[in-house]
Amino acid sequence: MPTRVLAFDGDDTLWHNESRFNLTQAALRDLLHRHVPDADVDGHLFELEMRNLSLYGYGVKAFTLSMLETAIHLTDGRIPAADLQVILGWGKTMLTEPTELLDGVQESLLDVGARYSLLLITKGDLFDQESKLARSGLAEMFSGVEILSDKTLETYRSVLNRRGIKPEEFVMVGNSLRSDVVPVVALGARAVHIPYHVTWHHEQVPEELLPREGWHRLDTIAGLSGLLGSMDRG
Amino acid sequence: MPTRVLAFDGDDTLWHNESRFNLTQAALRDLLHRHVPDADVDGHLFELEMRNLSLYGYGVKAFTLSMLETAIHLTDGRIPAADLQVILGWGKTMLTEPTELLDGVQESLLDVGARYSLLLITKGDLFDQESKLARSGLAEMFSGVEILSDKTLETYRSVLNRRGIKPEEFVMVGNSLRSDVVPVVALGARAVHIPYHVTWHHEQVPEELLPREGWHRLDTIAGLSGLLGSMDRG
Repeated sequence: MPTRVLAFDGDDTLWHNESRFNLTQAALRDLLHRHVPDADVDGHLFELEMRNLSLYGYGVKAFTLSMLETAIHLTDGRIPAADLQVILGWGKTMLTEPTELLDGVQESLLDVGARYSLLLITKGDLFDQESKLARSGLAEMFSGVEILSDKTLETYRSVLNRRGIKPEEFVMVGNSLRSDVVPVVALGARAVHIPYHVTWHHEQVPEELLPREGWHRLDTIAGLSGLLGSMDRG
Repeated sequence: MPTRVLAFDGDDTLWHNESRFNLTQAALRDLLHRHVPDADVDGHLFELEMRNLSLYGYGVKAFTLSMLETAIHLTDGRIPAADLQVILGWGKTMLTEPTELLDGVQESLLDVGARYSLLLITKGDLFDQESKLARSGLAEMFSGVEILSDKTLETYRSVLNRRGIKPEEFVMVGNSLRSDVVPVVALGARAVHIPYHVTWHHEQVPEELLPREGWHRLDTIAGLSGLLGSMDRG
């Protein structure tokens, strides 16, 4: 069955995201090293983010709360409130920065949009994602938008059911093996993996857990139109 | 046209919510008055919540971030980090408390569910709302769930369009005049207002801005089934 619906992840697939988290995290490292020079800021933050995931979910607000908690923990409560105010400010900055598209995104969407029905399927904070999409200027290219609290076999299945899409006619495009490839292939649909230059540790998947078939990898979105054509031919 | 689809708000319509925010806010007041006895904690927090609304949206994470900012502001940065850690903990507690249903909710939903297709339409934090619905035990009573970043004429219109529902066959039930009544009536649908004993200031609507027709008020959800019957007869 030929591809009918093409779905895109947002963060780090259409627009830059993780690199901004990384920049903020580097600033946190510098700030906390002034108080506790030897602290493992990255390790502690990641551990707290994982522990808080079932409470906070994904997104900038969750990240900000985990940064604040990390700062208080690592300094044994000695950090001045003024420094915590600075961290609060970083979160606000992240939420207002313009959405910066990856190279070639606009051209590729215009191209494939003429042949397929396009969906945006992102996960994370509802408010934040809606705001990023609005600032991206891409909203009217999509026939539908789904913002999920997490991307799993079940949440993909529910989107496809609700929209009357068969797995065989669905292709997901994204930068995360864990969120955009593995659950989609498990559902019997296909996926295109376009790696971003940085990947959050939580989104990484060991090579041996990757499906053998049902997905392809591209260096950049520029190759997408050609790949989709050859996938349907062969 | 008789009612076909009956939609319910979640917070303070099906389960308790605002009363918990109020309890936490009272604790914040006590904590900050130990540092600044004369501070207007409620006023300052509300002002910050409104200023942050376009960045953070609704929900417990947004509330926690605004409480932290209030605490730092009102104490001129003199509050110890340990107290801010306590505030972070309050947010986590709010996110894990069991979902406590209002009286009569289960019986009413079972009753009206036999006659109408039921939707849940809530606003707020996606992750938080999904988690509350799961903990409520009510999830399988609804044929669909919509979690909106805000409830406006446009977002209601989009839900109705997407689901093929005509305004004339749609009734919204909720505790907020601002979110559950005014935009729904403006769309040509009908609404039932069931006030909760406390209302967040932001959700209040001056009497003179209320529509004259198209909505009814009930004291409790127990009267809903009877009211809907008489609305469709008359």
